[in-house]
Amino acid sequence: MGKNQKNINLIIAGTIGLDDVETPFGRVRGVLGGSGVYSAVAASFFAKCGLISIAGTDLSETYRNLLIRKGINLEGVVYHGKTFRWSGSYKFDMNEAQTLKTELNSLVSFNPSLPEKYKQADYLLLANIDPSHQLKILSQMKASSFVAVDTMNYWINSKKAELLKVFRKADLIVINEGEARALFDTPNLIKAGKRILALGPAYVAIKKGEHGALLFSKNSFFSAPGYPLEEVKDPTGAGDSFAGGLMGYLSKTGNTAESNIRKAVIYGSAIASCCAEEFSLEYSKNITLRNIKERFHVCNQIRKF
Amino acid sequence: MGKNQKNINLIIAGTIGLDDVETPFGRVRGVLGGSGVYSAVAASFFAKCGLISIAGTDLSETYRNLLIRKGINLEGVVYHGKTFRWSGSYKFDMNEAQTLKTELNSLVSFNPSLPEKYKQADYLLLANIDPSHQLKILSQMKASSFVAVDTMNYWINSKKAELLKVFRKADLIVINEGEARALFDTPNLIKAGKRILALGPAYVAIKKGEHGALLFSKNSFFSAPGYPLEEVKDPTGAGDSFAGGLMGYLSKTGNTAESNIRKAVIYGSAIASCCAEEFSLEYSKNITLRNIKERFHVCNQIRKF
Repeated sequence: MGKNQKNINLIIAGTIGLDDVETPFGRVRGVLGGSGVYSAVAASFFAKCGLISIAGTDLSETYRNLLIRKGINLEGVVYHGKTFRWSGSYKFDMNEAQTLKTELNSLVSFNPSLPEKYKQADYLLLANIDPSHQLKILSQMKASSFVAVDTMNYWINSKKAELLKVFRKADLIVINEGEARALFDTPNLIKAGKRILALGPAYVAIKKGEHGALLFSKNSFFSAPGYPLEEVKDPTGAGDSFAGGLMGYLSKTGNTAESNIRKAVIYGSAIASCCAEEFSLEYSKNITLRNIKERFHVCNQIRKF
Repeated sequence: MGKNQKNINLIIAGTIGLDDVETPFGRVRGVLGGSGVYSAVAASFFAKCGLISIAGTDLSETYRNLLIRKGINLEGVVYHGKTFRWSGSYKFDMNEAQTLKTELNSLVSFNPSLPEKYKQADYLLLANIDPSHQLKILSQMKASSFVAVDTMNYWINSKKAELLKVFRKADLIVINEGEARALFDTPNLIKAGKRILALGPAYVAIKKGEHGALLFSKNSFFSAPGYPLEEVKDPTGAGDSFAGGLMGYLSKTGNTAESNIRKAVIYGSAIASCCAEEFSLEYSKNITLRNIKERFHVCNQIRKF
């Protein structure tokens, strides 16, 4: 394998979308979004990554360039028809998006096929996308990759069996608290985390937004504080950014020991908090790795007594 | 002052009630409850305390004895008419009680008057009760006591001006997340905490149930993890127990330095988690200080990376 093929060690699969979002703090239309985009941009602060996705031929050069400037390899992106479009709104409490409209568009014809240079990557993030796509991608990767999986309520409700099949093959499940409670129909997050662990993955990270995150493993449990954020303009993509930041940090450090995954969870929280402060991917234009490290440091300090 | 008068260093004011509670895990009727009772029992694991309250003449010997066995001084309790009664139910998610009925009964005629031996206590917890009662009690204490105040949404809605008057005279506000958001009409807890701090108290503790607690002071911020509880049978009184445990620990250690208040917050969480595992005050019959210290230790471990 050539040198060029070795330097992408993190592959992220997820959607590329154009979003219409309304929150109490503003409204945007047709802005760049999607689980793959949010995750890859977050990961790019730590490591070079390759994106597996599909976009429409209508995706603007501006948006393509935003990803390229972040050093994201787009050889795994195909273009066909119209870009996936999502419309959502947030109420006053900003806790959960209400989906107003979903147009799958090019996602319908997505048949993921990995570039050769992606298949040897040590880290794979299957961001939120149809579990059948996740399974196809997984089957093309080398067996020893460290695999993280994210999802959303929609797949829990509509394709639970396939989703659980993906979960069983993963090393780390990243899931938000509402989804975790819904998956096995329990209001108790500790029970939910343990039930997911019992499926087979070594780790389960439950994202709790402002309340931080929980990390479960067979023999231990970790509670990460949320970054104390005062301004949330648009939570869209914060969860994807958490997963992307977490995996970016792991692939950068090349260390999947539990203590390092705990750190990666904090980095994920830190970058998710940056994402939520602005609409779409705006945060990525102003934030540096130094800012993220400062937030990591804050999260480190506020948990001490 | 005699020796006998020196040994009560923590005074707790709040209600004594008889509760009817229904949760998905069971139903109890006419069981001992009330903010003063829950707080005092929690505090009793750490320190001797005196209770200021009113009960009806119908309060059973069994319930009186439960308090006496916990070493709670009842010289500040008066008896008149019927005991305050509260009926509430919890849905599947166990997050918030729905109040079905409130009968104030003897609370209506409550005119708190402190026994002389209470007035010199160094620690005062004004648990959830009418803010006008809280003000009356406060005015009878020596000026240098460390004062913590708890409340509930009902007083935020009906007696906000009086409640803010109490807050301005306190050293520590203990409030749950829903109340904190409601008080200044902001969904953001960090903003809410800072707004409450700006009223004057040196500390604000926001209780977040399963998500732990936040502690705000002028120059710092602390995020305490929640104890990872798998079984919640009845959350009634968990918030009162948090406040009581916190103040019990402070009065026992005699130290109101910020680092010790952080520890007290963790002890508050630990004892609140014990309370929620059983109906009414059942937990207090089986739990020892050693169990609480074990939970403190767990909360210490799960936040490390």
